[in-house]
Amino acid sequence: MHFHHHGYVSEDPRIHAAAGSGIDRPTELPETMDVLIVGTGPAGMITAAQLAQFPDVTTRIVERRGGRLELGQADGIQARSVETFQAFGFAERIIQEAYRITETSFWRPDPDNSSHIVRTARTPDDPHGISEFPHLIVNQARVLDYFAESMALAPTRMAPDYGWEFVALEETGQGEYPVQVTLRRTVGEDAGSERVVKTKYVVGSDGARSQVRQAIGCKLTGDKANHAWGVMDVLAETDFPDIRMKCAIQSGSGGSILLIPREGGHLFRMYVDLGVVPEDDNGAVRQTTIDQIIAKANDIIAPYSLDVKEVAWHSVYEVGHRLTERFDDVVESERGQRTPRVFITGDACHTHSAKAGQGMNVSMQDGFNLAWKLGHVISGRANPQLLDTYSQERQVIAQNLIDFDKQWSTLMAKKPEEFESPSELEDFYVRTAEFPAGFMTEYPESLIIGGTDHQDLATGFPVGKRFKSSPAVRVCDANPLELGHLAEADGKWRIYVFADEQEAAANSATRRFADWLTTAPQSPLAATPAGASDDAFVDVKVIYQQPYDSIDLNDVPEAFRPKVGRYRLTFLQKVFGTGMDTDIFAARGISRSGAVVVVRPDQYVAQVLPLDATDQLGEFFAPLLTH
Amino acid sequence: MHFHHHGYVSEDPRIHAAAGSGIDRPTELPETMDVLIVGTGPAGMITAAQLAQFPDVTTRIVERRGGRLELGQADGIQARSVETFQAFGFAERIIQEAYRITETSFWRPDPDNSSHIVRTARTPDDPHGISEFPHLIVNQARVLDYFAESMALAPTRMAPDYGWEFVALEETGQGEYPVQVTLRRTVGEDAGSERVVKTKYVVGSDGARSQVRQAIGCKLTGDKANHAWGVMDVLAETDFPDIRMKCAIQSGSGGSILLIPREGGHLFRMYVDLGVVPEDDNGAVRQTTIDQIIAKANDIIAPYSLDVKEVAWHSVYEVGHRLTERFDDVVESERGQRTPRVFITGDACHTHSAKAGQGMNVSMQDGFNLAWKLGHVISGRANPQLLDTYSQERQVIAQNLIDFDKQWSTLMAKKPEEFESPSELEDFYVRTAEFPAGFMTEYPESLIIGGTDHQDLATGFPVGKRFKSSPAVRVCDANPLELGHLAEADGKWRIYVFADEQEAAANSATRRFADWLTTAPQSPLAATPAGASDDAFVDVKVIYQQPYDSIDLNDVPEAFRPKVGRYRLTFLQKVFGTGMDTDIFAARGISRSGAVVVVRPDQYVAQVLPLDATDQLGEFFAPLLTH
Ligand SMILES: Cc1cc2nc3c(=O)[nH]c(=O)nc-3n(C[C@H](O)[C@H](O)[C@H](O)COP(=O)(O)OP(=O)(O)OC[C@H]3O[C@@H](n4cnc5c(N)ncnc54)[C@H](O)[C@@H]3O)c2cc1C
Ligand SMILES: Cc1cc2nc3c(=O)[nH]c(=O)nc-3n(C[C@H](O)[C@H](O)[C@H](O)COP(=O)(O)OP(=O)(O)OC[C@H]3O[C@@H](n4cnc5c(N)ncnc54)[C@H](O)[C@@H]3O)c2cc1C
Repeated sequence: MHFHHHGYVSEDPRIHAAAGSGIDRPTELPETMDVLIVGTGPAGMITAAQLAQFPDVTTRIVERRGGRLELGQADGIQARSVETFQAFGFAERIIQEAYRITETSFWRPDPDNSSHIVRTARTPDDPHGISEFPHLIVNQARVLDYFAESMALAPTRMAPDYGWEFVALEETGQGEYPVQVTLRRTVGEDAGSERVVKTKYVVGSDGARSQVRQAIGCKLTGDKANHAWGVMDVLAETDFPDIRMKCAIQSGSGGSILLIPREGGHLFRMYVDLGVVPEDDNGAVRQTTIDQIIAKANDIIAPYSLDVKEVAWHSVYEVGHRLTERFDDVVESERGQRTPRVFITGDACHTHSAKAGQGMNVSMQDGFNLAWKLGHVISGRANPQLLDTYSQERQVIAQNLIDFDKQWSTLMAKKPEEFESPSELEDFYVRTAEFPAGFMTEYPESLIIGGTDHQDLATGFPVGKRFKSSPAVRVCDANPLELGHLAEADGKWRIYVFADEQEAAANSATRRFADWLTTAPQSPLAATPAGASDDAFVDVKVIYQQPYDSIDLNDVPEAFRPKVGRYRLTFLQKVFGTGMDTDIFAARGISRSGAVVVVRPDQYVAQVLPLDATDQLGEFFAPLLTH
Repeated sequence: MHFHHHGYVSEDPRIHAAAGSGIDRPTELPETMDVLIVGTGPAGMITAAQLAQFPDVTTRIVERRGGRLELGQADGIQARSVETFQAFGFAERIIQEAYRITETSFWRPDPDNSSHIVRTARTPDDPHGISEFPHLIVNQARVLDYFAESMALAPTRMAPDYGWEFVALEETGQGEYPVQVTLRRTVGEDAGSERVVKTKYVVGSDGARSQVRQAIGCKLTGDKANHAWGVMDVLAETDFPDIRMKCAIQSGSGGSILLIPREGGHLFRMYVDLGVVPEDDNGAVRQTTIDQIIAKANDIIAPYSLDVKEVAWHSVYEVGHRLTERFDDVVESERGQRTPRVFITGDACHTHSAKAGQGMNVSMQDGFNLAWKLGHVISGRANPQLLDTYSQERQVIAQNLIDFDKQWSTLMAKKPEEFESPSELEDFYVRTAEFPAGFMTEYPESLIIGGTDHQDLATGFPVGKRFKSSPAVRVCDANPLELGHLAEADGKWRIYVFADEQEAAANSATRRFADWLTTAPQSPLAATPAGASDDAFVDVKVIYQQPYDSIDLNDVPEAFRPKVGRYRLTFLQKVFGTGMDTDIFAARGISRSGAVVVVRPDQYVAQVLPLDATDQLGEFFAPLLTH
């Protein structure tokens, strides 16, 4: 954590000093704002938490409900989401309270007695060690709480505006705030009354039945029919020995359960498969009672049984694989003519079966992708065309996800006798583990993703994939640290300069690159506003090949020792070396002739370049950090 | 974390349901209480935070200051203290914001130019890997904040009563509340007014000038003269390359500095040695100005220099090695006749040089030692004679500490030419690392520490030392966990049952021990109140030698599957196995014939016994868990 640079702070350093729109932020919804987010689900809350880091931007997030979510909905947290939480400052705490999945058990009908189930396999959850972060299960409500805390501590002191429902929007195209939104009060004395507010941008994070989606003329297409599950979060006594393990259970009768142990040591969730919902169902499946769900569960797990003591939450969750063709308000014919003003994220643009536990995770990545772009454009750092990349990047990801999810759901629904091999299910699960963990996303070349011409300089940092952390030793204090974990969700671009073989003092390619950074008008650093910390927009770190304790900080170029804060103090924590059993060059396949790795604010690798590719770097940043 | 067992909780599971004295806890200081703690330093706050876990006990903690500590005082946090914070639930968070010491640099006069200093050595801070916890530096104020948070979340909803000064006490020996304490208001309209409250026990954690100490007729004896340091917490620009490393610096002129980098990336503390204070000093040393301290620091670090931008805190810290002969109100002649009513902890009973960074740490261990004993006696679990063990155990520790500290300070004060070998200082530092890390405490045999007859059954858990954690795999959810980190500061005794070689289902020595636990009238579990969770007083865990995935939970004796909470749900998280690269039997030298390791609520190993030593165990617990 970086603090005290503006002077000593005595209280919790997680509380940022209020700044910009956070100074005297009105508790009441104002007349105008830069961004209006609709819905406080995971998609909306991460967007708000990220925008909360931009003091120049006024963001409000409205929610139909009168207060925080209390129960139910999603609970699966992929490693990629935990990695994201780390950037928002709450990974450790949520890990502490969550259930951690390390293995999945598979239960099938006993070949000798098909009315009984037996355990047929246990597979590791992350067999390839994909991430240093765990796979967690914790209620969606807690995830939202942590984002709420994160935005409250941010310079803008954000908090959701509960009790406001989105009704309609109109793009007037006029003035500074060209989108007009009608909201309806849902609680309190004035419930039912309407208000019109004006905003620069709208983000529709209003879930599967999104009104914002409708307002911009997008349609979910895909499955005709829904699949239904009886879902219950319960406290129960049982003799089923794997009750604290994630289990895929199939009974001889063809019934199936996905069992998800939950936080706290007792609670668990069961998804009892209710099958495909006929088109003429007319909501009949939704009449399934909790008693029926429990009875069905007891049937499936025989010879074991459940004695339910408390039902914390239950629901009949009906969903199909569906997707909109675009995630913003720019129709195909207008693309390139104007930049978007309205976006949709999360379940508003894609829905998928609960089985792969994707919903909350992919929705958060939508928001993480979008929010920094809005922050950069609104605060004037970047050209508005940056906003086109949101729909461009995320729509494909959603399509891929649905394809994967369909395969998975089909497999899960297969009857035992239909399997090609007895281990087909486990095999698929193990083979595709990177997908459900959230790390298969690989953005193609675009305004913000470079080519792969120099990928060989850093084979462990594939362009377009998220920057996979690796440890290095910080020179100033001899601390071995995960480099990636130092990247907070602060909206900054990051440049990791992997030095060539020469020492810090030498007149090396590294030094020439550093000098370009500090002096060239094309350097991204040149966009930093006068008076701001040198690292306000771009966080530059250098990693030398030498052992950390052989590097003299006084030899290190100034680009790697930025001046920060009120006193313009030299910040020494940007310089790294090898040692203490770490060598990031070996671990991540970095060329011994050095490399420049550029990472986006949402942690995706944007560029891998040689140390002398300054022209290319300058051009890349020209529309992204304008000055 | 264990929660939901009384029903689903939607909010932060760290917030315990209010219970006992926490229900409608008066904000105003009441007339009577069970424990009155004086002083909100580290010693007082840990005592309060621990007692806050006992709903049956009414505790108040008064502080002369009008509010929280904001600046200055101690900042060194030993690994043992971080281990303690872990039990109070805030280790991860304090680690996140603290500075972490991994190495110490030694700077001496340049042999070629004695007016310049040069680095002569770098030594690792924990060369022997003593602890899995780091050595931290963070302001005392933040430590106190975290304890305040911990007590606020506890069932008793505790908060300090600021603005009350202890004036005097009288032991009336009468009634339920035999100690009468006079307090004076220090803030607000009624400042200066006095109030008398009655209490069962008083804990004087009121620092080096303790009034409580005086009230019970204890005297600090030891050094005649104080040693003085000019201490400053500053933000500065400097070319001294090790400014973010802990450094012991000696200049050619004989001046010396202890440099302690601090949290946040910029702040650091310097202790500039001002030497022994002459007896006729009359406070002259305290006149040393901050400008003089800075000038002296600049002299010492030549050829480098400091340009101080902000002084967050500075002080002339004068202290000598001093100790009282007892830590409670029972004089030698009365010992055994009556049990104590008044205790002193922390600086109130021992003071020592700042150099070894001990003050805050040893003071917290005093409080951790005392608090559970008070909790157990007041709530009726244990005989009052338990309270005698506090002074008995801690006075010796303080004496040892002072002996160590004297050696260290003498060494640090030596002129370069006086050293026997060039590396004398570093050698001493490395050799004695377990001491400053806080792990040398080894309580002798007593009411609460057994003999070492069976130490060979568990050589890695020395009786009288703190239980050194090691990982094991939890059977129910295949989670590899540090066993010791599951021990919260909840006031419970812990029994770790290391099983013999037989399987869980067998009629083994382990099963016989388990059956004794659940059924014998002499079993410590028999003290558990009717209706409470089976593990309310004693947390029993079993560790099998078999791989975790070969153990069927339905085979495990009931003693290891307690019923808990409102619904008496079976709690499965007490059963462990080997595997996933862990074998605690090998790591901690546990006999393959099994062992019972009993651990105190303050984490010290109380007993190592064979599985059949049930009589001995019953006798041990007879005065400690009465029923
Ligand atoms: C009832 C329910 C049960 C679910 N159960 C499961 C499950 O069992 N397993 C699983 O994996 N996933 C489940 N999901 C899906 C999962 O919660 C989503 O995939 C995930 O939360 C997506 O996040 P999101 O932010 O896009 O949408 P959501 O979390 O749905 O958030 C949308 C938010 O917008 C608000 N909103 C909607 N319309 C308006 C409006 N007009 N004006 C203002 N606010 C509005 C909603 O109140 C809500 O808070 C469930 C979702 C719902 C709604
Ligand atoms: C001014 C100062 C500077 C220090 N500087 C350093 C340093 O630089 N380095 C270092 O290692 N250690 C330093 N220490 C010592 C270190 O803070 C202590 O060793 C450590 O805090 C011991 O904890 P404690 O709880 O026993 O006492 P303290 O932290 O001293 O706490 C005692 C508390 O009791 C309160 N109190 C005192 N008398 C009364 C009364 N009559 N009624 C009510 N409340 C009362 C005090 O206000 C204080 O909050 C310093 C201590 C002080 C007081």
